[in-house]
Amino acid sequence: MSLLVVGSVALDSVETPTAKRDNVLGGSAVFFSYAAAYFSEVRLVGEVGADWPAEHTELLKSRKIDTAGLRVVEGAKTFRWRGKYQPNMNDRETLEVHLNVFENFNPKLSAENRKSKFLFLANGSPVMQLGVLEQVPDRTLAVCDTMDLWINIQRDALLALLRRIDGIVLNDSEAKLLTGHENLVQAGRAVLELGPKFVVLKKGEHGAMFFSQDETFVMPAYPTPDVVDPTGAGDSFAGGMMGYLTSQGNFEPKTLKEALAYGTIVASFNVEDFSLDRMRQIERSDLDNRLTAYKRMLSF
Amino acid sequence: MSLLVVGSVALDSVETPTAKRDNVLGGSAVFFSYAAAYFSEVRLVGEVGADWPAEHTELLKSRKIDTAGLRVVEGAKTFRWRGKYQPNMNDRETLEVHLNVFENFNPKLSAENRKSKFLFLANGSPVMQLGVLEQVPDRTLAVCDTMDLWINIQRDALLALLRRIDGIVLNDSEAKLLTGHENLVQAGRAVLELGPKFVVLKKGEHGAMFFSQDETFVMPAYPTPDVVDPTGAGDSFAGGMMGYLTSQGNFEPKTLKEALAYGTIVASFNVEDFSLDRMRQIERSDLDNRLTAYKRMLSF
Repeated sequence: MSLLVVGSVALDSVETPTAKRDNVLGGSAVFFSYAAAYFSEVRLVGEVGADWPAEHTELLKSRKIDTAGLRVVEGAKTFRWRGKYQPNMNDRETLEVHLNVFENFNPKLSAENRKSKFLFLANGSPVMQLGVLEQVPDRTLAVCDTMDLWINIQRDALLALLRRIDGIVLNDSEAKLLTGHENLVQAGRAVLELGPKFVVLKKGEHGAMFFSQDETFVMPAYPTPDVVDPTGAGDSFAGGMMGYLTSQGNFEPKTLKEALAYGTIVASFNVEDFSLDRMRQIERSDLDNRLTAYKRMLSF
Repeated sequence: MSLLVVGSVALDSVETPTAKRDNVLGGSAVFFSYAAAYFSEVRLVGEVGADWPAEHTELLKSRKIDTAGLRVVEGAKTFRWRGKYQPNMNDRETLEVHLNVFENFNPKLSAENRKSKFLFLANGSPVMQLGVLEQVPDRTLAVCDTMDLWINIQRDALLALLRRIDGIVLNDSEAKLLTGHENLVQAGRAVLELGPKFVVLKKGEHGAMFFSQDETFVMPAYPTPDVVDPTGAGDSFAGGMMGYLTSQGNFEPKTLKEALAYGTIVASFNVEDFSLDRMRQIERSDLDNRLTAYKRMLSF
């Protein structure tokens, strides 16, 4: 099975209360694909500028991520984000955003990528996401992410997307903004009524909630004491989830729950260092070991 | 086995974004004992004033709570609290506090109560809590709660209490205040180093975390869509937990985990209406049914 991710590829500058990194590898499609690659083949579609260090592409390739769809646009600059985390490491402030090449990102998929069965529309405008969705007609499962920005400025396009998408992964604050419900269970169910077959509501350090017609459940985050940089936690969560679903070739309720657990575990590693630094140190067996501990933690 | 709770007995006035109640039955020892009574015999020790409606005592007695230790102080007034919840129903503002009779609360336990095996020191000053602890020398298990107020103004007494107590139940914000750690896993472990055998860190709508020398685990809150009034959630959680431990007569790791799950379930009912109104409608079987759903929710 093949998993296609379309989204941002970025150079991030991150400040935490105790450390700082400038221009490190980031972007939703990067965290996603690196996490998904533990489970399945991944094809990444994105755009970067002439300032893009070739070594980043090599790193992705070294994990067998197909980067044929990563286009280097001459004369353009890569998307850059600078953010600062509060002492609680859950709330963050965006200090600078330079969309650069990402501003007009509107990918035309290759013939090969159009045949993908599993599709994840990572961070990007709903208009762009809809454009990509239409290029993958034979998909088994399509899931999207979104952001408060798009809820505010492209609500209609987002609602159109939600009527056609199978699943959505979004933050608790975004679900509140989208639905007007402050109670997270009500907010999750209200998103479900907008069209998708399932909704995954991410709560940062508090884990994730899942909603479908038949089921509501909560999964706590794995309690790691070593939170160094939460950037990419949501994207690596989605990557672990979608990678596992792709490896299983279905999104039955049982598979979805296992997929959310794997997403939780990958994200718990991702936050333990800046950029992809922690994920670069671990293998699938590390995920499986922590998953076993997590399962034991939740059983009584 | 017998469970003794010592703490506040109050008349609460509560405002939520959609409703308001004045002078309803509340207080830490009340929520605690009502919740614990689903599992074991409970003895309540507290003080109220001449303004205390006798029907409240009758209600507690109707659940077989032993109220012999509930002292009505002539010429005094009952502890009153007025609070307002934010739209997210997790954050609240205290609008008024009149400690009244609770200000000098310093109970002398009866000979019968001194023989209690399970003890919960609910909301109250650490000095008072230490005084009660000394009166129950043959205890099997003593657990305390605390509040930001006591961390700020009676830190030394609280630290002395923590060196002698078996377990503590406290909010995430209180654990951060007490230890200076913003990461909850680090904060929980730091509280553990202050003396207790186990620490339960309550996260409101996000559930609870548990810490002992051998174990760290997280339990999410049961996802109820009907959050009407969160007042007493933490106390009913502690009541369910301690009531179950008392019914089992031990605090082995397995029993503790089950106890936290029961605490989670009782609290999820408690928040579904004001005061004790929701708990008054349910029986032990309702708790067991929801516990079964909760267990299923957490297994994969």
